Amino acid sequence: MVRSAHTKPHGEERPKAASRTMAKNAAPSFETRPAGAPQDEAQRLPHRAAHDDFRWDGVEMRPYKEDERALYKSITRQVLFSDPNMAGELRYFEVAPGGFSTLERHDHMHAVLILRGSGHCLVGDAVKSLETNDLVTVAPMTWHQFRATKGEPLGFLCMVNAERDKPQLPSAEDVARLRKHPAIAAFLDNKPKA
Amino acid sequence: MVRSAHTKPHGEERPKAASRTMAKNAAPSFETRPAGAPQDEAQRLPHRAAHDDFRWDGVEMRPYKEDERALYKSITRQVLFSDPNMAGELRYFEVAPGGFSTLERHDHMHAVLILRGSGHCLVGDAVKSLETNDLVTVAPMTWHQFRATKGEPLGFLCMVNAERDKPQLPSAEDVARLRKHPAIAAFLDNKPKA
Repeated sequence: MVRSAHTKPHGEERPKAASRTMAKNAAPSFETRPAGAPQDEAQRLPHRAAHDDFRWDGVEMRPYKEDERALYKSITRQVLFSDPNMAGELRYFEVAPGGFSTLERHDHMHAVLILRGSGHCLVGDAVKSLETNDLVTVAPMTWHQFRATKGEPLGFLCMVNAERDKPQLPSAEDVARLRKHPAIAAFLDNKPKA
Repeated sequence: MVRSAHTKPHGEERPKAASRTMAKNAAPSFETRPAGAPQDEAQRLPHRAAHDDFRWDGVEMRPYKEDERALYKSITRQVLFSDPNMAGELRYFEVAPGGFSTLERHDHMHAVLILRGSGHCLVGDAVKSLETNDLVTVAPMTWHQFRATKGEPLGFLCMVNAERDKPQLPSAEDVARLRKHPAIAAFLDNKPKA
């Protein structure tokens, strides 16, 4: 499942994104590969070059399938670092313009850095406008969502604990409670105010 | 020690770097602040805006003092995420042109993403040319060093375990062994070949 990066010279050429191939039969999935899985082998390579359009050598892109309940839309995930010796994982998510991540909460925290583009996020009761390199901290059991609201992609790094609980989805009552805040209602309707 | 970001509206203005103040009495230090220290309070803020020149709201910049043994040169550190609930930490290091990080090894791993500029790194026996967004993995007990060799800053994110061992410095014999590789010798002389 891992591209043969071992045989490619590093630092001499930067192949185009178009020349790379997706891992075969990579089923879209929310689940993180368990520690010690095959991709870890590539992740122990000392150097993995970045390509155009925020793709990397030896990193499989896992598109989220579109969700019939509209819980998320147009978001992809790449696991950049995951290793049995590391207590954290670093992933790169990218939301296409108009797309959004799942509105969810969980006991584990998210540590986010916006790597590409801009957008908005909801964290707790706060709607924030996001620019490249901004930091977002999602504390335990805090509702959160990321949206590419500004006509460009919103790409972000997200550090999490390797061992973590599963996300919880909001009930209809949770959503109704959030929507009582006009700023949150506007955000959830993809029309944030600021 | 933490800037009062609580009272600043977010998402409406982006103050210039020049308007920000350094934490008072911030002694240069290699040591990471222990979990639960004051800076964590700022790091629980949902949103911390990025400023010009890779500085952030509520993040203290800790310049490394210049080292009399020339183990490192012209490198600064900012701890972006460190929290008792997170098993990993995310730091941003920036090496000024011509500068370099400490040549060291340790049992904990480094997971690195180049956020700004370009340069070279040594990882084990390999010298790699680095461009923005490239990934670098430093496996346990692997000699490594980052150098801003291309006339521009080399800024990188580095994820580590919050609980980790102290770095080991190379002995004269270690350096002599590394220098037997012509590519490594050239790198250590700040003249990498590729």
